[in-house]
Amino acid sequence: MELFFLGTGSGVPSKERNVSALALQMLQERQSTWLFDCGESTQHQILRTNIRPRRIEKIFITHLHGDHIYGLPGLLSSRSFQGGETPCTIYGPKGLKEYVVTALRVSGTRLPYPLEIIEVAEGVIYEDEGLLVESIRLEHGLESFGYIIQEKDQPGELLPERLKAAGISPGPIYQKIKQNEATELSDGRVIQRDDFIGPSKRGRKLAILGDTRYLESLADDLKHADILVHEATFAGADEQLAYAYFHSTTRQAAQLAKLADAKQLIISHISSRYQGEEAEELLREAREIFPNTVIAHDFYEHPVPANK
Amino acid sequence: MELFFLGTGSGVPSKERNVSALALQMLQERQSTWLFDCGESTQHQILRTNIRPRRIEKIFITHLHGDHIYGLPGLLSSRSFQGGETPCTIYGPKGLKEYVVTALRVSGTRLPYPLEIIEVAEGVIYEDEGLLVESIRLEHGLESFGYIIQEKDQPGELLPERLKAAGISPGPIYQKIKQNEATELSDGRVIQRDDFIGPSKRGRKLAILGDTRYLESLADDLKHADILVHEATFAGADEQLAYAYFHSTTRQAAQLAKLADAKQLIISHISSRYQGEEAEELLREAREIFPNTVIAHDFYEHPVPANK
Ligand SMILES: [Zn+2]
Ligand SMILES: [Zn+2]
Repeated sequence: MELFFLGTGSGVPSKERNVSALALQMLQERQSTWLFDCGESTQHQILRTNIRPRRIEKIFITHLHGDHIYGLPGLLSSRSFQGGETPCTIYGPKGLKEYVVTALRVSGTRLPYPLEIIEVAEGVIYEDEGLLVESIRLEHGLESFGYIIQEKDQPGELLPERLKAAGISPGPIYQKIKQNEATELSDGRVIQRDDFIGPSKRGRKLAILGDTRYLESLADDLKHADILVHEATFAGADEQLAYAYFHSTTRQAAQLAKLADAKQLIISHISSRYQGEEAEELLREAREIFPNTVIAHDFYEHPVPANK
Repeated sequence: MELFFLGTGSGVPSKERNVSALALQMLQERQSTWLFDCGESTQHQILRTNIRPRRIEKIFITHLHGDHIYGLPGLLSSRSFQGGETPCTIYGPKGLKEYVVTALRVSGTRLPYPLEIIEVAEGVIYEDEGLLVESIRLEHGLESFGYIIQEKDQPGELLPERLKAAGISPGPIYQKIKQNEATELSDGRVIQRDDFIGPSKRGRKLAILGDTRYLESLADDLKHADILVHEATFAGADEQLAYAYFHSTTRQAAQLAKLADAKQLIISHISSRYQGEEAEELLREAREIFPNTVIAHDFYEHPVPANK
């Protein structure tokens, strides 16, 4: 698992930062990539990476502002040019479907793969064997969501030493023992998995938030997130501006990470008003409150290591 | 007057060529820029030029394929971020209005300047004191237009030698003589402008065509164009492919320029299948038929000098 920041600017593209897009690469886990937001030129950013559009399985849109969606029709089209035939699902606020369907229809675009567009409310929006995705409501000029990606806990590793000590030799039986709570051996013994397996691995929890005002009440939902991606459109001193424009400051992002007892904060959605030294100052401000903070830049890759 | 190619690729963006957009800079003539097509990331290309989005007065869309329109909503939004308050008018095929209006509405975008969207048919679509724009119908998978920009002939320069010889001294009267067919002098004489003015300057004629099959019948409309911008999506040998996909080859573009007796052909809309040496071969093919051909690349600038 790895986060790959494709666009880390706010509002309009600049030479330094494109508008919002973030890829969650899960190539080992499920041979797929999930995308969060898709501002204009996201497909152009992707051209400069090793991300393959046809591997993009799901796209989560936090809100419908242009800097978060104007790259969608183009990406969906290019996905087919590049041989994408597997289904793609897009999640996002009400209005998303009308936007995408109109753009594709008017431009005479027929996709060769199944496209599903799901307009979400708050709650669990997706679940499979390995992952659960929940949307939480934020506070922005228009409906905006955060997405919490919760990896399910993984059973621990078999303990071969202990199995051998019990006279159980390696073979297909090991797989059976791992997959079932109790297993009957060929000699008639019934053994419990718990006696032969290490501690289970806690699944990773990622929280990727759209544009929002500071919302203390989110701390519960974000509790113990391994990674929190939070916007920081304004510097710490500009709290009033941030409030007026429905955005957050560096310090507010850090404060929320602290309240939630997150492991790692990544701030993004950085305004082009902050350049060079000023952008570094944004990071310093956040670290004063939450030391384990990084500031994203375009093409920044952040690994998400498995929990022990 | 100058043509500035912003995107010269076809279908999908590549690292070398972005999707279609072409700026006609008329800074000296009318302090404005006209844009022809607006593929995704056109505003990003513009960031790397001296073109100012707020100077973009008119946008002409040849057809509604995604690679020609997906950059529109973003450009219109950024135009306002960058202080654009003057009106903007977009011309294009039926469906354009629904596309733009939906994208802006769904994304909650309110433009601070008047935006007019005019869905065109064949014929004169715009005229003012200096320019006339005509749309001509092409043959593509969906409705596609070419735009002919005809600059009106300019009256010639006053001939001061001849005026002085007639005993007319320099002063405000010169301006009056230039502006009127006949002028009465203070001494009662009535003089004819034609006797004191050089030959009028022929207005420039530019033809900027959208995607199309080879259409010999266009030669009349394109007659004596100073510049013809024509797509060349395929190499000369791929005539059948070009026909099947509603596109043209290098040789067909050149053939049309020759039939129309154009002064200059610029081929664009180049497929990413042709790289380096192969792209040069495209140019050679066209030049065999129409020597005065250039092949556009992203950020290629082509001056359009005034006629003598
Ligand atoms: Zn935003
Ligand atoms: Zn095209």
